Amino acid sequence: MRTSILLFLLLALAVTSQATCTNDKNPSIRSLTDKTYSYGEEIATPIHLLRPKSGLAGRKVPQTDCLSWRLAVETNNIRDWHLVPMSCEQYVGHYILGKQYKDDCDAVADAAIEYAKSIKLGGKGKEIWVFDIDETTLSNLPYYARSDVQFGALPYNDTKFNEWVATGKAPAIPAILRLYKTLLTLGIKPVFLSGTKEVYQQVRVDNLHKVGYYNWEKLILKGKNEKGSAVEYKSSKRTELVEAGYIIVGNIGDQWSDLLGTNVGARTFKVPDPLYFIG
Amino acid sequence: MRTSILLFLLLALAVTSQATCTNDKNPSIRSLTDKTYSYGEEIATPIHLLRPKSGLAGRKVPQTDCLSWRLAVETNNIRDWHLVPMSCEQYVGHYILGKQYKDDCDAVADAAIEYAKSIKLGGKGKEIWVFDIDETTLSNLPYYARSDVQFGALPYNDTKFNEWVATGKAPAIPAILRLYKTLLTLGIKPVFLSGTKEVYQQVRVDNLHKVGYYNWEKLILKGKNEKGSAVEYKSSKRTELVEAGYIIVGNIGDQWSDLLGTNVGARTFKVPDPLYFIG
Repeated sequence: MRTSILLFLLLALAVTSQATCTNDKNPSIRSLTDKTYSYGEEIATPIHLLRPKSGLAGRKVPQTDCLSWRLAVETNNIRDWHLVPMSCEQYVGHYILGKQYKDDCDAVADAAIEYAKSIKLGGKGKEIWVFDIDETTLSNLPYYARSDVQFGALPYNDTKFNEWVATGKAPAIPAILRLYKTLLTLGIKPVFLSGTKEVYQQVRVDNLHKVGYYNWEKLILKGKNEKGSAVEYKSSKRTELVEAGYIIVGNIGDQWSDLLGTNVGARTFKVPDPLYFIG
Repeated sequence: MRTSILLFLLLALAVTSQATCTNDKNPSIRSLTDKTYSYGEEIATPIHLLRPKSGLAGRKVPQTDCLSWRLAVETNNIRDWHLVPMSCEQYVGHYILGKQYKDDCDAVADAAIEYAKSIKLGGKGKEIWVFDIDETTLSNLPYYARSDVQFGALPYNDTKFNEWVATGKAPAIPAILRLYKTLLTLGIKPVFLSGTKEVYQQVRVDNLHKVGYYNWEKLILKGKNEKGSAVEYKSSKRTELVEAGYIIVGNIGDQWSDLLGTNVGARTFKVPDPLYFIG
């Protein structure tokens, strides 16, 4: 009788231990819907939490290089790339729908808010903060999570993307909305500067209103006759702002083309974006 | 008899499973000396492999924010910081002594080499590549891994650091040495531009020679009379190079102050460095 009980206990221990280990090794079992960071009904699949795969302890993991690829993208070392490497599609999806992307965006907002609070305003109301829109102010994740887009691992389709923009359903990026609201309370005026075409002006205004951005000094979209690279376009628009007497105290965007060039502002803030490159 | 054997097997299974799980949860048990990336005798403690702690599956991990902190540092969102946050000291140590830092440096070198191979030289031998030295060309990890430095979590001590520099024992960063050698074969001339004081000229030359850097167009160290910020110093030296007819095709450094300012070069490459900030 005592042997049977011992046998049962040991069996239970063995099964429990194995189950724990299996869960730890297979991240897909951990997938769950993160209700604090849902991107709305567009995403039918559950939201997976990030599990960085770094090939620890000598185990070969096919996605080993995706962490380094992402860092190289975020630091502007890799440029002019057209697609997320197919081997990193799953990694990028896990990252951007997961907790780490949310934490990374929060860290950007925290640093920006700490800096903004240190600014002494001149009293003439000329201090502005330049916000990019896509993947900075608004998120296109409901589009990028689609099976025909695969987080930027499939080629960009202008028609499909514009159809998505036209729905006006892009959610806010919560951390950046928090920065925006803090800047308003501090008396720093937001200026939206985007490469979106002017034809989408009304749909973008409605979309911004719907998710909590109600107030701005200017909303600058790309006119039909604008030519040149993103760096040139954004530099020229920022120069117009400076020539009009504005002081760019801060500048935030998900692309380095938002943050390099002329009149970039007193401080720049890079929002993470491993989905696409705009040069 | 058969019960005893079954009992023994189950016990063995339970113990093995527990041991595996414990190892998986306690990264310190996994520590090992990485012979492929040793930083020499200076590091008495074993080299730990990185295990990013990202607070997955709702578990609270005190170091959750260190990944976001590091990304914010690498993207120049957090500036003018004086110390690695004490809560991230262990994380930074694991990262920088581990596989991920090596992989990240390799990704920088890969991107730089891919770009360098695409450059069409003018035939006059004026194309140069600017290299920073500390944490770019040479590694001070044997110093930063010391218990009285703690990977930058303890305050910087100028006397101690200079004593370390004077030993001339800094190893090369393998990925950057690989980039350097490739550039030489391509006909692009290396220029070392460092904030190290000129008084260390000979010890630095000897150190560079000892670890594999034998050949360069110029080695520029900081003179007694140099004033201003790191951005100003490096910008002015790069401007002198351009005015002397050189073409800066590439520029690599671990600090954004190496890569911003004037005449930064046709492409910049940021080497990871979560140990310290130079503005």
